Amino acid sequence: MKMFTCSSAKLLALFSTEMAHTCAFRRYVHDGRLRVSNMFQPMATRQSNVAGKGKELTCKSQRLMLQTGLIRQAHPGAYHLMGPALRAVEKLVRLVDQEMAAIGGQKVEMPTLTPGELWKATDRWDTMGTELFKLQDRHKADYCLGPTHEEAVTEIVAAQSNLSYKQLPIKLYQITRKFRDERRPRFGLLRGREFLMKDLYTFDTSEETARETYEGVSQAYSRVFNRLGLNYVRVEADPGDIGGSLSHEYHLPAEVGEDQLLVCSQCSFGANKEAIAENQTSCPSCSSPLTVTQGIEVGHTFYLGTKYSSVFNAAFLNNKGQPQLCEMGCYGLGMTRILAAAVEVLSLADQIRWPEVIAPYHVYIIPPKKGSKEEAASQLAEDLYDIIPQQLPHLRGEVLLDDRSHMTIGKRLKDANVLGYPYVVVVGKQALEADQKFEVIHQTEEQTQTHHVSREELLHLLSNCTTV
Amino acid sequence: MKMFTCSSAKLLALFSTEMAHTCAFRRYVHDGRLRVSNMFQPMATRQSNVAGKGKELTCKSQRLMLQTGLIRQAHPGAYHLMGPALRAVEKLVRLVDQEMAAIGGQKVEMPTLTPGELWKATDRWDTMGTELFKLQDRHKADYCLGPTHEEAVTEIVAAQSNLSYKQLPIKLYQITRKFRDERRPRFGLLRGREFLMKDLYTFDTSEETARETYEGVSQAYSRVFNRLGLNYVRVEADPGDIGGSLSHEYHLPAEVGEDQLLVCSQCSFGANKEAIAENQTSCPSCSSPLTVTQGIEVGHTFYLGTKYSSVFNAAFLNNKGQPQLCEMGCYGLGMTRILAAAVEVLSLADQIRWPEVIAPYHVYIIPPKKGSKEEAASQLAEDLYDIIPQQLPHLRGEVLLDDRSHMTIGKRLKDANVLGYPYVVVVGKQALEADQKFEVIHQTEEQTQTHHVSREELLHLLSNCTTV
Repeated sequence: MKMFTCSSAKLLALFSTEMAHTCAFRRYVHDGRLRVSNMFQPMATRQSNVAGKGKELTCKSQRLMLQTGLIRQAHPGAYHLMGPALRAVEKLVRLVDQEMAAIGGQKVEMPTLTPGELWKATDRWDTMGTELFKLQDRHKADYCLGPTHEEAVTEIVAAQSNLSYKQLPIKLYQITRKFRDERRPRFGLLRGREFLMKDLYTFDTSEETARETYEGVSQAYSRVFNRLGLNYVRVEADPGDIGGSLSHEYHLPAEVGEDQLLVCSQCSFGANKEAIAENQTSCPSCSSPLTVTQGIEVGHTFYLGTKYSSVFNAAFLNNKGQPQLCEMGCYGLGMTRILAAAVEVLSLADQIRWPEVIAPYHVYIIPPKKGSKEEAASQLAEDLYDIIPQQLPHLRGEVLLDDRSHMTIGKRLKDANVLGYPYVVVVGKQALEADQKFEVIHQTEEQTQTHHVSREELLHLLSNCTTV
Repeated sequence: MKMFTCSSAKLLALFSTEMAHTCAFRRYVHDGRLRVSNMFQPMATRQSNVAGKGKELTCKSQRLMLQTGLIRQAHPGAYHLMGPALRAVEKLVRLVDQEMAAIGGQKVEMPTLTPGELWKATDRWDTMGTELFKLQDRHKADYCLGPTHEEAVTEIVAAQSNLSYKQLPIKLYQITRKFRDERRPRFGLLRGREFLMKDLYTFDTSEETARETYEGVSQAYSRVFNRLGLNYVRVEADPGDIGGSLSHEYHLPAEVGEDQLLVCSQCSFGANKEAIAENQTSCPSCSSPLTVTQGIEVGHTFYLGTKYSSVFNAAFLNNKGQPQLCEMGCYGLGMTRILAAAVEVLSLADQIRWPEVIAPYHVYIIPPKKGSKEEAASQLAEDLYDIIPQQLPHLRGEVLLDDRSHMTIGKRLKDANVLGYPYVVVVGKQALEADQKFEVIHQTEEQTQTHHVSREELLHLLSNCTTV
């Protein structure tokens, strides 16, 4: 920008205006402390907000996320993600990015609008039916809103005319919004029409190496769910629309799950009921009885072979210099669905519980009530707020201060329990006693543990907190 | 997952299969080093890739980004972002997140699919005309792909029936893909039909506080462009479709820019030609002559007043307990456009230059050619690769190793110059001499500086490198 070089009178006038703006503005400058009173996370006050619009079926996670203002319905099957929910999603994205990088995945982004011609080339323009959101641009060209991107990514690789076998495997993934015009969207983020998905596409030289890649991605998926602390079941699946000859689904066992899984009571075998003969009641691997459980599908892996590479001629030059079709795999993780499914399986009936590593915030500090006997401890609460990230850098940005000090500690504690952030620190009258103590409530899926600890003990406790 | 508990023979069989998979898989496990030979960033070999499909107008940034495989056209006005381009975008997102947090902005995400009824309520369903991508779902309900979200966000705030004046200002923003059916998409990411935009919406109690908020956001925008090291011009603008009474645009001066700006040669006044009387040739503020310059619009701020809050009844309770309409502002930053515009204004004719802070990678190491006299220095290159992030944690993940050692140093250096990553380190014969030296080429917009430095001097040089 230019410097002010007008006459001195004008300069002065300009300067004072600038100053006035700056001073006035300062009132609104964020002081860096994350205060609950400043957060726009409206707890639902009206039942209409909670039930969802229309006749959508509800479940525990949806109800809790609506009640706590984490999400808000925009239209059937589509939700606004409010601040803390988006934080959890962004953490999940970082965690998945790390696991994809660990297996050599390269992150890209493909457009949402996908040319109809690509989908017509694989016939999926018709076979996907009414689940595909279709539209035309101003020139009457056909597009769909990508629900998955096999066509688009295969076309990218096919365009590389001199791809050598030495450059394979190629592993391209993206974490973007996907679209599916569900007949009956339901259960909040569990079955929406617009959702965040991680989709990885792999290109290999042979079926053998493609199966090795498949195994590598499967191990990465295990690490994702293990880091989230989620029990999951991996089952054989029906490849469905996507195609291919080898396919597994990842499920979180839950009553609200829409898939019926048959799981062996003895060995690791499991299958989606759709993928198995109807009269199969014993394990095909060890003959033990199969038990039925409901599951929420949160991931899916497919070995595709040359189904897509043959359509778009995605080929590489083999070690004899001959063109040969790539052996492909595709691998999905429903990101917003994982979040909601985790809330579904971890939460109590009326209190949210999070996978600790992706909780929106990790520490929730409750200072004393204004006008109470322990009000003098308020400064201690602010000191804690400042010292925690200083001493524990992995908790930077992870500490919230519930400064609604016109409310009793008890009332704010109730909110904190519902929100379910892992560590709630109450700064009450014990903080003013000779052997200064803070009350720490560690909220996990299994139990709620209360500790009375000194500042040093608190810092030690929080040092165990896993973040991403 | 369950443990294997089948018969011992079967267990053994399973175990060996697992082991075989694991060992084979290990071959493909990423060793953590970022090697150029593993990267899928296809340099365009065919002219057809470079010119873009159809008759799209081209410019320097688009040509360079296509040639270096940073982007690939998916269809008119829509591009795949390949690995390094997405890295730059993700860094820009982090930088903008930091500046939004500094002014108390809260990050949310609203769905892409926006109900037609919202846009009909403000008449923009019709007034936006053919630029709005419209579609119907399976129930024939109207939707558009959000090009901007005033309607949606105002509806969220309007739904909070007990909003108090104490909770204002509210500042909600998102960084998401936006859609606009441009009649003539052109210049690559500069004018696309699908692009990444940061949109902030503010809600205030009065015009006075709304103007303070406006000033605060304007200062945040200045910080964004200053941190990127970009010269920009802030000019008075025509509010156009969005509406409101106060509006400024942020432009990067560039020949390819599609806006004509009138800028005062003496004071800070500037205006878009559209926003000023046609015969105005002298500055309305200091009467000095106005000069004309072309600009690429990269940001826009609007004071909206109650234009949208009145339609959706987005109100708060004032200090007398009376409902009063929120005074709104909206503020956009074209994220993918900023990236392309920066490449446009910073690059040489045939070499990309980046804003250093968001360069996809910061350090590019070139080891010696295989079979050359200096081959023995290869290990030194790998050592450098490992030690840089150890000594300089802000460069973790920022160092690339150009392991294409079948190519001469000169050939790889040429690629490195075209890619334009800020620091290129050549490990050549000087590295094997008694006073071990590395050649460092610091590539900036203004100049290319070459230094011959020891390992310690190199680390000192790189310690000045700004990252986000």
